[in-house]
Amino acid sequence: MAVPRTRGPGRRPGGEDTRGAIVAMARQEFAEKGYDGASLRGIARAADVDPALVHHYFGGGKEELFVAAMQLPFSPAEQVPAILGPGIDGLGERMTRFFLGVWRDPERRDPFLALLRSAVTNEQAAAMMRGFVTEALLSRVAAGLDLPPAECELRVELGVAQLVGMAMLRYVIRLEPLASASEDEIVALVAPTLQRYLTPSAE
Amino acid sequence: MAVPRTRGPGRRPGGEDTRGAIVAMARQEFAEKGYDGASLRGIARAADVDPALVHHYFGGGKEELFVAAMQLPFSPAEQVPAILGPGIDGLGERMTRFFLGVWRDPERRDPFLALLRSAVTNEQAAAMMRGFVTEALLSRVAAGLDLPPAECELRVELGVAQLVGMAMLRYVIRLEPLASASEDEIVALVAPTLQRYLTPSAE
Repeated sequence: MAVPRTRGPGRRPGGEDTRGAIVAMARQEFAEKGYDGASLRGIARAADVDPALVHHYFGGGKEELFVAAMQLPFSPAEQVPAILGPGIDGLGERMTRFFLGVWRDPERRDPFLALLRSAVTNEQAAAMMRGFVTEALLSRVAAGLDLPPAECELRVELGVAQLVGMAMLRYVIRLEPLASASEDEIVALVAPTLQRYLTPSAE
Repeated sequence: MAVPRTRGPGRRPGGEDTRGAIVAMARQEFAEKGYDGASLRGIARAADVDPALVHHYFGGGKEELFVAAMQLPFSPAEQVPAILGPGIDGLGERMTRFFLGVWRDPERRDPFLALLRSAVTNEQAAAMMRGFVTEALLSRVAAGLDLPPAECELRVELGVAQLVGMAMLRYVIRLEPLASASEDEIVALVAPTLQRYLTPSAE
């Protein structure tokens, strides 16, 4: 007969289990309160751990915890600066190739797809995604570009819209010939679109 | 006590009820067999009516029946030629304004959104949408443009991807500043993208 595991009173100690418990609780808190409404303190309380332990596991704070909770296939905190780093030349192509790379691999694609599915079917999930995309992605890209903030964000969002719509038609609806087109064929058409959005002076 | 309506043996006669029964059965047949697999004959059989009656109500055939079954807010058979009619000049702007117009009105937006939701959550719905979009929209647009068919379809799909992605971020995720941008601001940025896809010679 299996003996149920017992746990003494007081907070959970550190360990693999604890990290998992924090991530599981974070998923729930983000779903209930949205990205903006959730806090590390609240997640620590819900997971029954010391807030210092959350900081120990997730030094990058709320954003890193969200990436872990949603099993996102990349971390904007690392990838966005890497893509912006080489400057405006070729930025449209680097963004397009990076995005295609994430969607190419089913294991990296699935968490993305799950997020997209819940965002279109559930207003809470949409709000959660809105908060995260704005803070982790858009404000970071906008800060790295030399454009007036308001106009810049609109332009970045339209570029992201092109990529998200392309992924929808290519990987979800699987429309031909887009579904079978090579990445180079797609880059040849889509990269100039993004580049144009990001460099208004070139128009 | 309510007396149940009785119906004699044999097929349903014509009338409002019959049209509704055909539409309801069509919805089910499209969902089960996809757009390509469903047939007017099969829908007539399932709705227990003479196939001639289906043709009587839906002279435009399977496509018109699909538009009615999905409560689509526009008929590609009418709208696509109207948008293409004035020629290539300004085509990107006409497509963008038409699309924004459909999404602007919640009553016209909701059936679209329902279709998008089921396409991302359900492979059968995705297949259904794929068949309809290819036949009713893409082949019609591609036929109206003066481009090699294979390249043309890819370009049209990327234009549609831009519009679909924009609608996702603007109306579903409601990302700012895109969600509050005026239609003119969006047209100013998006119409040139579509125009570029549709007129490769201008690159």
